[in-house]
Amino acid sequence: MKAVVTVVLKDGVLDPQGKAVGHALEGLGFFGIGEVRVGKVIELDLAETDPERARESAEAMARRLLANTVIERFEVLIR
Amino acid sequence: MKAVVTVVLKDGVLDPQGKAVGHALEGLGFFGIGEVRVGKVIELDLAETDPERARESAEAMARRLLANTVIERFEVLIR
Repeated sequence: MKAVVTVVLKDGVLDPQGKAVGHALEGLGFFGIGEVRVGKVIELDLAETDPERARESAEAMARRLLANTVIERFEVLIR
Repeated sequence: MKAVVTVVLKDGVLDPQGKAVGHALEGLGFFGIGEVRVGKVIELDLAETDPERARESAEAMARRLLANTVIERFEVLIR
């Protein structure tokens, strides 16, 4: 199974990189842009074939290594 | 509308950060991990209310700034 883990700073945590991207987009002529947040995405090929177990495994990986749950939230998508 | 742009290195482009994450996960006792690819995700709050136009706008942003389409692929999700 393929697991996609998305990790983004929690709401309320300052994201200067997101602010910079927002300003750059406005500089390029894009309008109507509100808040921008930049995070990371980790795509994992897992040998596990059961979607529920693949999700549990990917969530454990996110909690142990991929995300800092003090300041970041994560989301797991199984494909 | 909220647009989520995911940017990951194309298949075939070496991803040392992904390799490092894969090794670190194995070191933590996770098994059955194949290829790991690390990319970025950009969450945008857009004033645009039409989903189709929001998607077009986010795709234009990805092509102009967010992704380097020579070595990266991107995906747009409208929520």
